[in-house]
Amino acid sequence: MTRFNPVTPRVIERLKGIVGEEHVLTSPEDLARYGLDEIEERYRSLPEVVVKPRSPEEIAAIMRLANQERVPVTPRGAGTGLSGGAIPICGGIVISLERMNEILEIDPDNMMVTVEPGVVLADMMRAVEAHGLFYPVDVSTLESCHVGGNVAENAGGARAVKYGITGHWVYGLEMVTPTGEIVRLGGKRIKDVTGYNLVQLVVGSEGTLGIITKITFRLTVKPKYVLDLLIPFDSLKDAVAQVLGLLREEQGLSAIEFMDSLSIRAAEKYLNLTLPYDDCEAHLLIQVDGMEEEGVWQAAERVYKRLMEAGAKEVFVADNRITREKLWRARRNIAEALKALNSYVSVEDIVVPRSEIPEMARRLRELSRAHGLEVPLYGHIGDGNLHPTPVSGGRDEETWARDLAAFLSDMFKAVKELGGNITAEHGIGFKRVKYLPLVMDEVEIKLMEAIKKAWDPNGILNPGKIFPAEGTCSS
Amino acid sequence: MTRFNPVTPRVIERLKGIVGEEHVLTSPEDLARYGLDEIEERYRSLPEVVVKPRSPEEIAAIMRLANQERVPVTPRGAGTGLSGGAIPICGGIVISLERMNEILEIDPDNMMVTVEPGVVLADMMRAVEAHGLFYPVDVSTLESCHVGGNVAENAGGARAVKYGITGHWVYGLEMVTPTGEIVRLGGKRIKDVTGYNLVQLVVGSEGTLGIITKITFRLTVKPKYVLDLLIPFDSLKDAVAQVLGLLREEQGLSAIEFMDSLSIRAAEKYLNLTLPYDDCEAHLLIQVDGMEEEGVWQAAERVYKRLMEAGAKEVFVADNRITREKLWRARRNIAEALKALNSYVSVEDIVVPRSEIPEMARRLRELSRAHGLEVPLYGHIGDGNLHPTPVSGGRDEETWARDLAAFLSDMFKAVKELGGNITAEHGIGFKRVKYLPLVMDEVEIKLMEAIKKAWDPNGILNPGKIFPAEGTCSS
Repeated sequence: MTRFNPVTPRVIERLKGIVGEEHVLTSPEDLARYGLDEIEERYRSLPEVVVKPRSPEEIAAIMRLANQERVPVTPRGAGTGLSGGAIPICGGIVISLERMNEILEIDPDNMMVTVEPGVVLADMMRAVEAHGLFYPVDVSTLESCHVGGNVAENAGGARAVKYGITGHWVYGLEMVTPTGEIVRLGGKRIKDVTGYNLVQLVVGSEGTLGIITKITFRLTVKPKYVLDLLIPFDSLKDAVAQVLGLLREEQGLSAIEFMDSLSIRAAEKYLNLTLPYDDCEAHLLIQVDGMEEEGVWQAAERVYKRLMEAGAKEVFVADNRITREKLWRARRNIAEALKALNSYVSVEDIVVPRSEIPEMARRLRELSRAHGLEVPLYGHIGDGNLHPTPVSGGRDEETWARDLAAFLSDMFKAVKELGGNITAEHGIGFKRVKYLPLVMDEVEIKLMEAIKKAWDPNGILNPGKIFPAEGTCSS
Repeated sequence: MTRFNPVTPRVIERLKGIVGEEHVLTSPEDLARYGLDEIEERYRSLPEVVVKPRSPEEIAAIMRLANQERVPVTPRGAGTGLSGGAIPICGGIVISLERMNEILEIDPDNMMVTVEPGVVLADMMRAVEAHGLFYPVDVSTLESCHVGGNVAENAGGARAVKYGITGHWVYGLEMVTPTGEIVRLGGKRIKDVTGYNLVQLVVGSEGTLGIITKITFRLTVKPKYVLDLLIPFDSLKDAVAQVLGLLREEQGLSAIEFMDSLSIRAAEKYLNLTLPYDDCEAHLLIQVDGMEEEGVWQAAERVYKRLMEAGAKEVFVADNRITREKLWRARRNIAEALKALNSYVSVEDIVVPRSEIPEMARRLRELSRAHGLEVPLYGHIGDGNLHPTPVSGGRDEETWARDLAAFLSDMFKAVKELGGNITAEHGIGFKRVKYLPLVMDEVEIKLMEAIKKAWDPNGILNPGKIFPAEGTCSS
């Protein structure tokens, strides 16, 4: 028995009545463009219709209609997600937020900005910087991802080690509930304990608890001085071992990134650039920022001394925009590079307590050998967040899928043993649904499901995401 | 019809079987001690029995029993709350967490500490400082309050302007659900988006969603240099007006507190001490901290210059422990002082967007005059969080209750108009239940109620708190 009904011509007519005919897409080419995000092609699944509303009221009307008709709804930002969160796996309606893309208010007095979900992250960052303000969450896809997706997935990025992740900056939300009501949560208040923290419940709920229609982000002051340090190590072990000490002794570091030689070489090839010492096993990329030039240089010097003593080959200092951009371009494009250079890749997103980083790196090498799978390793090592990215090499799709599954299962077991978890910033989405019971207590899953069911009794909003039991479209 | 059943002798016997006879209290004197927190006497309500479990397993057994018997349960920490959250307004069982008071683990590598809920906040702070670590949430009652209560209420305190509130430091929880299951949420992971953010849902849920049995707090590095500045102003308006500029220009300020002359004088009288310029209308108390002495002094100098130019009478610098402690003792004891000097007081806890602080201060003076009620004003002005504290003067209890209600209703309307809210760090508890619909959207209340009902189908855990509709013990 199907849980959901198909989208009938009558439903399409009603959708046109809500958002206007030109904002309802049904052609096969259009539907194909809304059937995948940045995960593997084999996960593609087409919607029956795509609608592009312009207001919360239109979205509320769509949700009420979808409830009446028992049609599933999948919200979508820029489609840059890495867990399949925006894929309409049960078909139905895709609501694309792309037309809701206005920066509504920059409020310098309260140091807040209010935006619609379809604003591109880098556009928002530039807009607030023009007012001397700073939104610090530096997601790799900043030039294309939408802030609404950042909030839905609670995106992390490179500067989390100092500035936290998306959720830390979200103070107000407007959203449409699964049953089609508009609600405003939080606001421009730094402290507020009036009722449950629904803002942070919705942040990271991957579009399963509501469709976000406005976001108020808190901002900070833009640091005046920024230095980036690229530090090659002959030994991966030595590089990783340094991270804990750095974290304990230096408070001002705004990024501690890690790239192994497989990752570096892929980025070099893809971007056609050369980084120094690319034959080294590991590179750390460390950012220092602050309001005073002298303090930033002093911190950089301490890092320099410490790492040279610990076996670094060299410490390259990037103190100008062009060199800094070159380093970060390499770091940000690793996933893209690996995708371009292989038929199949799987960008993973594990997290372990920071003290377990060396052990996790060791186990990853061991698992890579044991499974005969090449696994480039890079990530936000300062947060304990690594992106091991198995690549297919010469495998055909079937062999790849089988070998990958075996590797992931072993990797996630190791992650669990070390007190870690299966996703730090990409989300469970569709891709990791089946691994959730491996790491999460049954009681916790039941508590989450109880909320989902209480807010979305018909289960129509982004079905098949997060929850193992809802992984299918029929009951 | 009563929703709940009375605690029968049979239930008491079963409770004794669970926690041991010596940990079940039923004498009138014992019950009286568990019938109130730090709000007004008129809110006192007695439990039928008090139990003191020692483990999550015991609490789980109590919750299962309470569900079978339909007996309400109210969890209790140190009873220092300011919203009646620990008052058993429907009678039933009080679960006191006082025996669960161990610091379980200090983990310097991950910069985390794991504790039981009955640990006194200051004890935890001192224990981690011995390892060079720092828990920065500086609640006024730090020498008596329990960390479990801090988490349940999402307590704020003086350093929130730089370091955030309790919730920002909670990374792991163990709790017993309302239906008596033990669950572990979060852990020692800096970033983790695996599933909904249940940790932050439980933080600040005022004991209505579960009973917290273990907490893992993230820690930071203790700042090496701290200065406190006391700055008297002749004009309250001038003092308040300075706060916004300071917030925008100085990132290192770890506290921006405010006290009006009524508050200062009460503290002086109560503590038998004298502060300079106590005839001034307003004082700011500003803390600067940092890792480098020079930077801290430079920031203090900038504050000094700015405020002297803006009409400060003087800037007193406290750079030693004794003087610093004197200033903070005065600030921390204002609420106690007002209570000691008046028959009745009501410590309020409003928050407005920071840009509205001057307007809110103006309106409070106006409302104070209009209602003929003396309203000492102090609080965490850097967060937009003020504690207007109406005092009874010569009023009898009945007149007081009536005049207070009229004042509060007007004050909360003003708060709402300015985009603020009714509680920033004390909680709704029982005291503010009736005002919730004044400031919160019906849809949001329904979303919160849906979660409460999904997790606690019999509504037995801390009934009558937060939700207007559950304000009674009978249906």
